[in-house]
Amino acid sequence: MVNAKEISNFLGTTTIVVGDSKKVVYKISKIIPGKVGTLSFCKYEDGRAKGLISRSRSSIIICSSQISLFVSDFIGKTFILVPQPRLAFMKAANEFFPWRDTPGIHPTAVISNAEIGKNVRIGAGTVIGGEGFGYMPDENGELIQFPHIGGVIIEDNVEIGVNVCIDRGALGDTIIGRGTKIDNLVHVAHNVKIGKNCQIICLVGIGGSVEIGDNSFVGISACIRNQIKIGKNAVIGMGAVVVKNVPDNMTVAGNPANPIPK
Amino acid sequence: MVNAKEISNFLGTTTIVVGDSKKVVYKISKIIPGKVGTLSFCKYEDGRAKGLISRSRSSIIICSSQISLFVSDFIGKTFILVPQPRLAFMKAANEFFPWRDTPGIHPTAVISNAEIGKNVRIGAGTVIGGEGFGYMPDENGELIQFPHIGGVIIEDNVEIGVNVCIDRGALGDTIIGRGTKIDNLVHVAHNVKIGKNCQIICLVGIGGSVEIGDNSFVGISACIRNQIKIGKNAVIGMGAVVVKNVPDNMTVAGNPANPIPK
Amino acid sequence: MVNAKEISNFLGTTTIVVGDSKKVVYKISKIIPGKVGTLSFCKYEDGRAKGLISRSRSSIIICSSQISLFVSDFIGKTFILVPQPRLAFMKAANEFFPWRDTPGIHPTAVISNAEIGKNVRIGAGTVIGGEGFGYMPDENGELIQFPHIGGVIIEDNVEIGVNVCIDRGALGDTIIGRGTKIDNLVHVAHNVKIGKNCQIICLVGIGGSVEIGDNSFVGISACIRNQIKIGKNAVIGMGAVVVKNVPDNMTVAGNPANPIPK
Repeated sequence: MVNAKEISNFLGTTTIVVGDSKKVVYKISKIIPGKVGTLSFCKYEDGRAKGLISRSRSSIIICSSQISLFVSDFIGKTFILVPQPRLAFMKAANEFFPWRDTPGIHPTAVISNAEIGKNVRIGAGTVIGGEGFGYMPDENGELIQFPHIGGVIIEDNVEIGVNVCIDRGALGDTIIGRGTKIDNLVHVAHNVKIGKNCQIICLVGIGGSVEIGDNSFVGISACIRNQIKIGKNAVIGMGAVVVKNVPDNMTVAGNPANPIPK
Repeated sequence: MVNAKEISNFLGTTTIVVGDSKKVVYKISKIIPGKVGTLSFCKYEDGRAKGLISRSRSSIIICSSQISLFVSDFIGKTFILVPQPRLAFMKAANEFFPWRDTPGIHPTAVISNAEIGKNVRIGAGTVIGGEGFGYMPDENGELIQFPHIGGVIIEDNVEIGVNVCIDRGALGDTIIGRGTKIDNLVHVAHNVKIGKNCQIICLVGIGGSVEIGDNSFVGISACIRNQIKIGKNAVIGMGAVVVKNVPDNMTVAGNPANPIPK
Repeated sequence: MVNAKEISNFLGTTTIVVGDSKKVVYKISKIIPGKVGTLSFCKYEDGRAKGLISRSRSSIIICSSQISLFVSDFIGKTFILVPQPRLAFMKAANEFFPWRDTPGIHPTAVISNAEIGKNVRIGAGTVIGGEGFGYMPDENGELIQFPHIGGVIIEDNVEIGVNVCIDRGALGDTIIGRGTKIDNLVHVAHNVKIGKNCQIICLVGIGGSVEIGDNSFVGISACIRNQIKIGKNAVIGMGAVVVKNVPDNMTVAGNPANPIPK
């Protein structure tokens, strides 16, 4: 249970409460239909906001401070006006209504030969440290495997989804940078280096020794050829087939992937 | 063990037995080479049918009632003539030679916080109810996660393959409609609504809040952007990268996906 | 611990030791920075080789016999000159510094109804023998499943990655040919026949009854339509969407896939 004033204080000085600052909420909900006792947010600033707000039954609604409403629109509800309502809602929800499992290692997880940090959550289905794939035919056409003795380094605040595969490095390590988030069913091959605060969406295939710079985004089902370098703040579009290096700040899409205006 | 008459009766009134209606079969097999004591089907109506039938050793063959054969072609075997031989074979096989595991929950399955209906089969490898992926950078560039407190609703007669991921909704639920079938390695993101009797083939990536209408088909490795709406009876081609809404009855393919004539 | 002479003898008659043939190594490493007591290799023959070799601290370096260096470049290190340094390194590493887990079945693996050969390693996450996906709507629009009573045959020296799905055949078997290597998150549908010494890279989707000839290569995230036939020594490019048969020795890429010069 938390009241509007406490939420506003947590969100910081650019925040304004309109209405009863002692109004309390017990959980979060969607704005429509909403529910008495819940905290919601309104993502619109334009005309659509008024309709949603008037129909919502939520007790406190986080809205944009740019919203153009008459005072009469605010009657009977409590609002917290902020610069970025979605982000503010996310922060408040995570702070006052924690929803994630507490850290811990599920009893069915299989762990061997790993150093585990503090406050780690480990579920199941994702495999970290599988053998990389690096075969070469010998003189008889038999495929010989390159040795894989490297490790996987996962830095702080990384989050990895379900049924993901992150292969160990060959002679070096595979590295997932601080704060990077990886969605479900992603493949990260041997020796890949992913920078900080990247987002890698579902079903992405990242070839061996690829490097991805900080803050980059790789969309659903994109794939990246071995050895490719992706810069910082790059956007790899959904389904992109990346066969050339991508400089900083560039957006690419298509098969093969080409630059597109942001 | 079942005889031709019993199979024919089960398949209904549009069905005709040609040959010995007391001929019995003990299991199913391919038409070629076929085997004494087995039930097979012939998918062709044209000239290819005659060759297959004459070479098959199966005791009963389900054929199209449109097939053009001389009486002499039928000597020594028993046939069941039906409008749709493949479908009739599927129904008869499922009825008389049940091949699926009996319902039950495998002892290695991990279940918590779920309501399970009747006659459910649960294996392993597929993860239902993982956290959705909905991050947004805060003012320091750290990625903040949107709260995910929604559920997953799987309606009756849904079948889900291996190593599939179906994420829980954010504030609402993710819903898989009655009779829909999902192949292996598919990703279904938070808040997705899939209608009834859809087919979602392997390695498909479905973004957050996507809606797919009844009886639609999504081919191998297709991907669908967040928020997209796919109509009823739509066909999303193999490898399609869907970035625009798809109306009812439309077929799309390509990267990016565009309409193609059915 | 092994010395240069022993490695050279193992690699065969086209091999030459330059430097101290009794120099010993204890493990393998990258050439840069390298480490005293390790075996490395140099993949370049051109000017880049000299810089790497002079900076490396490794005790023995496997190099190309085509390399153009002065005698002075060789001082203080031991070299093994071979026709293919990468392949030679792979063979020597696998022989003298075995890095793979010993054969065995992980206690968490679930095995039922399978015949297991000798010297097999079984981990977890990959599912062999799942039901194929072969539905057809009946007259009411309900999807009926084709019976799947076939098996999966995995021939000798096959290696399969993590979170792979190989479905059982419908009336016949799914077959993975001798020496073929399959990367992570690959889907192999019912009745597929993959030949010998193929490489199937991550996130590939192979539709029902597809046939792939010997020594073929299927790149990251490619997909292949049901019933397609791929010849021998074919190359299916990364992200290719294959909707037509591919003859022997052909390279295809794109969505849809078309031939490209090798």
